[in-house]
Amino acid sequence: MNDPTAARPDAEQRARDWWRSAIIDMQPGVIRYRGYAIEDLIRQHTSLAQMIWLLTRGELPSRAQAALLEAALMAAVDHGPQAPSVAIARMAATCGVGLNSAMASGLNVLGDVHGGAGEQALALYEQVATRLDAGMAMADAVREALAEQVRQHGKTIPGFGHRFHPVDPRTAPLLERVDEAAAAGEVTGRFAAIGRTIEDALAAGGPRRIPMNIDGVTAVIYGELGFPAPLARGLFCLSRSVGLLAHAWEQTQQGGRIKGPLPKAWTPSYDGPAARAVPGGANAPPQAQGK
Amino acid sequence: MNDPTAARPDAEQRARDWWRSAIIDMQPGVIRYRGYAIEDLIRQHTSLAQMIWLLTRGELPSRAQAALLEAALMAAVDHGPQAPSVAIARMAATCGVGLNSAMASGLNVLGDVHGGAGEQALALYEQVATRLDAGMAMADAVREALAEQVRQHGKTIPGFGHRFHPVDPRTAPLLERVDEAAAAGEVTGRFAAIGRTIEDALAAGGPRRIPMNIDGVTAVIYGELGFPAPLARGLFCLSRSVGLLAHAWEQTQQGGRIKGPLPKAWTPSYDGPAARAVPGGANAPPQAQGK
Amino acid sequence: MNDPTAARPDAEQRARDWWRSAIIDMQPGVIRYRGYAIEDLIRQHTSLAQMIWLLTRGELPSRAQAALLEAALMAAVDHGPQAPSVAIARMAATCGVGLNSAMASGLNVLGDVHGGAGEQALALYEQVATRLDAGMAMADAVREALAEQVRQHGKTIPGFGHRFHPVDPRTAPLLERVDEAAAAGEVTGRFAAIGRTIEDALAAGGPRRIPMNIDGVTAVIYGELGFPAPLARGLFCLSRSVGLLAHAWEQTQQGGRIKGPLPKAWTPSYDGPAARAVPGGANAPPQAQGK
Amino acid sequence: MNDPTAARPDAEQRARDWWRSAIIDMQPGVIRYRGYAIEDLIRQHTSLAQMIWLLTRGELPSRAQAALLEAALMAAVDHGPQAPSVAIARMAATCGVGLNSAMASGLNVLGDVHGGAGEQALALYEQVATRLDAGMAMADAVREALAEQVRQHGKTIPGFGHRFHPVDPRTAPLLERVDEAAAAGEVTGRFAAIGRTIEDALAAGGPRRIPMNIDGVTAVIYGELGFPAPLARGLFCLSRSVGLLAHAWEQTQQGGRIKGPLPKAWTPSYDGPAARAVPGGANAPPQAQGK
Repeated sequence: MNDPTAARPDAEQRARDWWRSAIIDMQPGVIRYRGYAIEDLIRQHTSLAQMIWLLTRGELPSRAQAALLEAALMAAVDHGPQAPSVAIARMAATCGVGLNSAMASGLNVLGDVHGGAGEQALALYEQVATRLDAGMAMADAVREALAEQVRQHGKTIPGFGHRFHPVDPRTAPLLERVDEAAAAGEVTGRFAAIGRTIEDALAAGGPRRIPMNIDGVTAVIYGELGFPAPLARGLFCLSRSVGLLAHAWEQTQQGGRIKGPLPKAWTPSYDGPAARAVPGGANAPPQAQGK
Repeated sequence: MNDPTAARPDAEQRARDWWRSAIIDMQPGVIRYRGYAIEDLIRQHTSLAQMIWLLTRGELPSRAQAALLEAALMAAVDHGPQAPSVAIARMAATCGVGLNSAMASGLNVLGDVHGGAGEQALALYEQVATRLDAGMAMADAVREALAEQVRQHGKTIPGFGHRFHPVDPRTAPLLERVDEAAAAGEVTGRFAAIGRTIEDALAAGGPRRIPMNIDGVTAVIYGELGFPAPLARGLFCLSRSVGLLAHAWEQTQQGGRIKGPLPKAWTPSYDGPAARAVPGGANAPPQAQGK
Repeated sequence: MNDPTAARPDAEQRARDWWRSAIIDMQPGVIRYRGYAIEDLIRQHTSLAQMIWLLTRGELPSRAQAALLEAALMAAVDHGPQAPSVAIARMAATCGVGLNSAMASGLNVLGDVHGGAGEQALALYEQVATRLDAGMAMADAVREALAEQVRQHGKTIPGFGHRFHPVDPRTAPLLERVDEAAAAGEVTGRFAAIGRTIEDALAAGGPRRIPMNIDGVTAVIYGELGFPAPLARGLFCLSRSVGLLAHAWEQTQQGGRIKGPLPKAWTPSYDGPAARAVPGGANAPPQAQGK
Repeated sequence: MNDPTAARPDAEQRARDWWRSAIIDMQPGVIRYRGYAIEDLIRQHTSLAQMIWLLTRGELPSRAQAALLEAALMAAVDHGPQAPSVAIARMAATCGVGLNSAMASGLNVLGDVHGGAGEQALALYEQVATRLDAGMAMADAVREALAEQVRQHGKTIPGFGHRFHPVDPRTAPLLERVDEAAAAGEVTGRFAAIGRTIEDALAAGGPRRIPMNIDGVTAVIYGELGFPAPLARGLFCLSRSVGLLAHAWEQTQQGGRIKGPLPKAWTPSYDGPAARAVPGGANAPPQAQGK
């Protein structure tokens, strides 16, 4: 750890402080994450999920907590090349950039719409939890939070329903994992109850069930484990990066150069103006048309 | 242009329609932008600013309109490496990626905070303009729009004031260009009046003048030329890309490998936990600390 | 300009020097590009192309040189959404990221394969020019440089031939512009001659003409104007950014959420293993299969 | 799995085949990775490392193999904000883009120079392994491969030596993990032997030891596990993404807007031309200077 009392020119210290961090402490020959020496972490068989937790939150989780986190990360790795993020990573891989840039190009588009549903679902659950903390009953808390959600963000409830899967095959087995952890006292089960109550409330409000999807169930897990909503986005990004790598790599193996979205020689449909002359005589400046 | 009556398998047509565009019509040997053949555009000495306008808005502007657009684009090309976008492009250039990726890395961070002020300023001006259209007097329209702006987004008014420049040296000469265009009847001068009135209103409300900055004045120009606010962001991105290229290139010429933000061997300050042992005996799983 | 003799703590100066630049000099209220005050540049109607030249090369070009540069930049702005860069920008625009990130995502893939042909063509031309400088005749210089090109990089000659256009409609009018500039003494015409001789040599060596394409002709222009080959990539990136913006914007206007490469509900073909059981009994760790 | 004999319009099938993949098979309600149903994988407690292996290579590894892979991934998660990738992620987090874009911006620069050493080290090891396969003795194989490496890529041997750490604290404990796996018959130990022999050869050739670093030792692990060299880059990207997330998140918690590389108000040093007048009289076009 840097000694704050050491004599050092103020300006250098100011520059160092501009980049201060509590994540990593480095000295020549020394790397400590949140105070733990890297060699100790390696020798203790610290898992990748534990390391993710340690770096983002400051402390090591229990093995059981880490295993639940790992289940969420493992289950969301990929949803195929019809997802724009994956299509982008595959296209990029054929354009002469490295695997890092292919992955980054896909990761970059996991924004509010494509990658934000987990974060939004957890934010919704937190709205319910806040009401529970204030003494409200679960059904009331869910009803109020849903009404507020619809008022602010519209009728699509993040984490529920899926364009492609009538029932998302990832939801049930992940909820089982939460239930097992709750039974073992590793988590409280509160967010699972919130999620299920929301699902019931949505079914009661319409003609058919709108089941919890992967974003809804991973938000349950992240909520159980105490992750704040914005980190849910980051965790999803870590998870989906696995699929981005796998697809970029598969595309590299398949070959192809400058892969576009359509088979070669299929040009997009054009629906703009018909062919027309540029205004003005030859070599004269075009006249105004834009007014 | 594609012939919609041509016999073609429905599925292929659906795929083509999935990517329909009014920007470009391509046939073998033919490229038309918004209906204009590229060879005609080249032979007519169509300017880059005219092309930017044509592609984003569908019609060619007059030379005078294009010249005003060009002034805005030209004036905002760079603000030095203390801007994170530029620092990023320079760092990237030392990491083994191409100029395209160095530029993209910088461009990517021109988000709401770093690159959005022009868009936000133009949106504010549009709020004033809507009130003017409804018959309100300028001073009232500005007062109301500013009050609404502060209510929704806080006291920092986008497009006015600068952390570094007491007076932004780009503002006055660009406003002159607007005034000249207004005198020539190429633009109405309405957005220049809006911007100036906002500046006066801000001065009246506080101890010192908060002068219009580059974002505020380019928003005036884009407003005068009829660009919608979201495109102001895009135009700024085009403009700043010039600086990103120049800095990435200069860094390449300077050399350097894996350039970080601080001179080599200056490590960031660490303010996390002191050195500590990983819980659990040797080779045993760590115990829970994360609960 | 910073005064190198000013008394300032060494450490701060070292940090500033870590980011030194000859592109922009900033003081409060002052912005100078390569020594020119921004207000003077604006008032002199400096064009965007002149500014690009100034920032990347250090001096202002003549109006005629800038006009030739502008023609190259203007002509290459877009080639439609079947190009992966453009498809990526359009997809990104539907995923909840800003226009800046949509543009960056497309720009990022203009790597060696998708965006590097202009750079490679200019590098080839420079190989010819070096031989001309050494006194070799044009035909010999081209023959040798082409042979070396094929030996090192294979039979596809960058800048010549096009998958889609039998004849690239951008080539002839741009070469006319070069010829006009050469007739006016603004450029020497040497690179146009090199490009045409390469085209002839390729025709002589095969059954059909392989005409110069947009990358080949813009490389001629950049060569005539004295840009080094790596900057040709950067200039192409600036140019194509216009198309990226226009397409991202058009997609935004069209709407759509999480736009993938195929129409909704079209899933990619799967050619992997048939359905199979995970090895190991229920809740048992899977057994090794990966050895 | 799609039935290739099913009647379907040819054009749609061509479009689907354009995006074929062996990674994921999706039907409504069904997700199978490489043939394994996601619900089975979740219920079997498949680890994240196993999933990474499955998606990139097609089969599940043993638990022990996955644990060794996980150790390599876990140990390389972060090296602090003086690394440009991390500094970029932190800057980006202050610019108004999402965590996904902050992570992508950092990931994007893990190119050949900043992120490629592991890939390059493994490629070198593979050169040695090829010679061993041909019957050459270890010392000879290493000597030849090193000579070839120096001839092609210069004297810096990827995976050995560290600018900051005299001895990289991650190397010894990771080699222990390889040795344990080799003792258990899970890996052969061949790549550990290659890496150690290279280290010895480098020590013999110079005045001081140049110890194996994190890139060298993770390349040993990836080689032992049968990953090809280009995937080593991808695996490093997955690993370092954890650090990118943690730092982007920490920066978000710290706050800050438009964080540049230097403390606010420290401007970079300028070393370009002194202030000068734009050539040409007021409002006249600048004269040529660029020739």
